[in-house]
Amino acid sequence: MIYKKVYVLGAGAVGCYFGGMLARAHHDVTFIARPKRAKALNESGLEMDCKAFHEIVKVKASSDLSALKDADLVLLSVKSLDTERTLTEIKSILPSKAVILSLQNGVANIEIATKIIRNPIYAAVVYVAAGMIGQRTMKHHGRGELLVGSLGPTSTVDEENLQEICKLFGEVGVPCTHASQIKRDMWLKFLVNCSFNAISGIGQISYGEMVKSPEIIKHIEEITKEFLTIAALENVTITMSEALAANNAIATTMVTQVSSTAQDLAKGKLTEIDFLNGYIVQLGKQYGVATPYNESVHALVKMMESQIK
Amino acid sequence: MIYKKVYVLGAGAVGCYFGGMLARAHHDVTFIARPKRAKALNESGLEMDCKAFHEIVKVKASSDLSALKDADLVLLSVKSLDTERTLTEIKSILPSKAVILSLQNGVANIEIATKIIRNPIYAAVVYVAAGMIGQRTMKHHGRGELLVGSLGPTSTVDEENLQEICKLFGEVGVPCTHASQIKRDMWLKFLVNCSFNAISGIGQISYGEMVKSPEIIKHIEEITKEFLTIAALENVTITMSEALAANNAIATTMVTQVSSTAQDLAKGKLTEIDFLNGYIVQLGKQYGVATPYNESVHALVKMMESQIK
Repeated sequence: MIYKKVYVLGAGAVGCYFGGMLARAHHDVTFIARPKRAKALNESGLEMDCKAFHEIVKVKASSDLSALKDADLVLLSVKSLDTERTLTEIKSILPSKAVILSLQNGVANIEIATKIIRNPIYAAVVYVAAGMIGQRTMKHHGRGELLVGSLGPTSTVDEENLQEICKLFGEVGVPCTHASQIKRDMWLKFLVNCSFNAISGIGQISYGEMVKSPEIIKHIEEITKEFLTIAALENVTITMSEALAANNAIATTMVTQVSSTAQDLAKGKLTEIDFLNGYIVQLGKQYGVATPYNESVHALVKMMESQIK
Repeated sequence: MIYKKVYVLGAGAVGCYFGGMLARAHHDVTFIARPKRAKALNESGLEMDCKAFHEIVKVKASSDLSALKDADLVLLSVKSLDTERTLTEIKSILPSKAVILSLQNGVANIEIATKIIRNPIYAAVVYVAAGMIGQRTMKHHGRGELLVGSLGPTSTVDEENLQEICKLFGEVGVPCTHASQIKRDMWLKFLVNCSFNAISGIGQISYGEMVKSPEIIKHIEEITKEFLTIAALENVTITMSEALAANNAIATTMVTQVSSTAQDLAKGKLTEIDFLNGYIVQLGKQYGVATPYNESVHALVKMMESQIK
């Protein structure tokens, strides 16, 4: 095993699910978290309240980024908002051998990261329904698979690294596939984030409830049309029927899930909206393409963020 | 005084403010309300917690529409949703001499009413910031003036009726003007409803807070552009600068106000959204004009309504 020392950078629900699955199988995993969460995880362990099991997993946690000096693999799971700052902070700490796997939403993070850091960095498209309850409990509602790949030209070393990553996760019960078209897979995931996250956040409503409104089904379709126009300009070809199937899969496999945007707003935290619908709006401006439906939900989430005390 | 017997049909905040101002000056006013509210008003009076005074006004109230048989003037202040049903119910009760003044939002109510009932019906454009607290307390936050007029060709009788209405209100401290261009005034009010109501409702946020978000200022501008296109097709000419001034006046004179849409949603009641942004969307479809910004906020309010148990 080439990835002896694993670090989870950003101990939210996604980080705790995938890091927790490794820790549960006795891999050497350290969670980098805010002091309060790090203390709770060290003292009482990570409670994994999963669909298939409910266990308390003994884990290591730290708030000290200098711990990363011996990292082999970093699961990057900070919010998109924090990517730039976090990578700038670890730039001089992280050993050059360390491999980074971004488990983040949106399509902008890896581009941001490669501008800051020279380590190999791979994309993971994450499908998991999970949320944090309190400081140390991760509640898993369903799914939990990874698609991984390299956004740039893939060297033999990259192939080997990705193979190792898939092996690592596969052995602990996390289906992990090396996807040949990872950029397209990222955009498909990004699409469902744009379709569901903001609206779920605005209404504090689950995916299954959302799509009971015919007006919302129409709204999601309009968001999707704008999205596909922008995706095509970014050289990502997704057909409308593929897109609607992807949206539909989320609405039917994650019925009771509320989005991370909804969770952030409910907790009085800033959201990733600038990296979701806001990123489509930004690209729309660059390309001179109108994106009113994305713009509307982006504006409303920004307004809700402005109410956070 | 030709309007001896006044009935307030729909004892919400608007009905209670204007009916209350008349009752306070010892006019013969009866509030038609749901049984619970009628009982509270009869037993304990209407509490008017106004900017200029705070009084409990003894009033008459009833849930029985047959009371309207001796009406001289009806202040129609039911929600737009209830216009058709209510007028159908009172059609055979209301004496032909009775005059109706619609204090309602939107621009569709009078058209609906004239299809059902033959009594003279006039439009009032209402600017008042008020809300109900519990069953019998009307909290007044500011303003409280009326613009009244006739939507059809105005006969001498109409002129006299409107003059009497202005006199009636003027004498009790409610500024009331006979507006020569009432249709345009209605559309200007309708504009600010479309600009503010839905967004205030979606965010449960005051007008003053809303416009602190630059994204929301832009969103309101886009709603306004679509609105003006539709208004022009309905033969109502409003310039963009007039429209922005009207929006701005609301944001600055009603800083702490939340919309009736917000109040309805907070109380778990259906809103008038189909008569506000939903009406613009409907006209947009008729005229083949895209109205994405109105459509978005309409869809989100419909989704929130769908969550009412």
